[in-house]
Amino acid sequence: MLRPIGRVLSPLTDPVGAPRQGNEGAPKAWLVFEDGVRQAVSDLRPGDEVFVLTWLHHARRDVLSVHPRDDRRSPERGVFSTRSPERPNPIGLHRVEVLAIDGIRVQVSDLEAIDGTPVVDVKPVLPTDGR
Amino acid sequence: MLRPIGRVLSPLTDPVGAPRQGNEGAPKAWLVFEDGVRQAVSDLRPGDEVFVLTWLHHARRDVLSVHPRDDRRSPERGVFSTRSPERPNPIGLHRVEVLAIDGIRVQVSDLEAIDGTPVVDVKPVLPTDGR
Repeated sequence: MLRPIGRVLSPLTDPVGAPRQGNEGAPKAWLVFEDGVRQAVSDLRPGDEVFVLTWLHHARRDVLSVHPRDDRRSPERGVFSTRSPERPNPIGLHRVEVLAIDGIRVQVSDLEAIDGTPVVDVKPVLPTDGR
Repeated sequence: MLRPIGRVLSPLTDPVGAPRQGNEGAPKAWLVFEDGVRQAVSDLRPGDEVFVLTWLHHARRDVLSVHPRDDRRSPERGVFSTRSPERPNPIGLHRVEVLAIDGIRVQVSDLEAIDGTPVVDVKPVLPTDGR
């Protein structure tokens, strides 16, 4: 029922080497939207803080507990208590800033998703979203 | 490719009357998970701040711009600049607190999703998620 509405264009190509979180050295990336969602994108502006939702297409879906951050000294935790990409529905949730707009291409900061990752949604960050 | 891993059990039954955001008078609700994801749920604890991701199954997917909060005096905005449930992939993003655990049922605060809404993921809130 989920359908990709765009793709990530990024210098990151290897899931193994990718940063764990956007604030851990993740690069700028472009979101290249499909022409069919042009109107949905049309009010994004540089400076907007948004959540990008992706489909982490390389992630395993049969993993229900992980060693956080792949540190085998840490006890395993149920994946709903971690941000591991491995989970029953591998939806990525990435808080980024919009840096530039070029038609239906949107450049964002700090995106740890690799090149080619399907984009499924974009939402503005609300003040109540933080911890 | 998305599959429900549980359902919302809530006194809210009417999408029209439901609060727009969790902090606008939304009630407590239970997330009733499928037995197959028991291990993924197992480290959730009362007091945890989490994002619940849902599939807003009553939302229209062909709507690309809306009057924010259905206020027709406001200019229409592209849905990626709003938290409207109407969007190409109607994924709900709900920041809630875990209140209680009862096996594979998890009670949470402030959930504006209506009874029966499919749950697709749960993620811990990170300090970097806020505005």
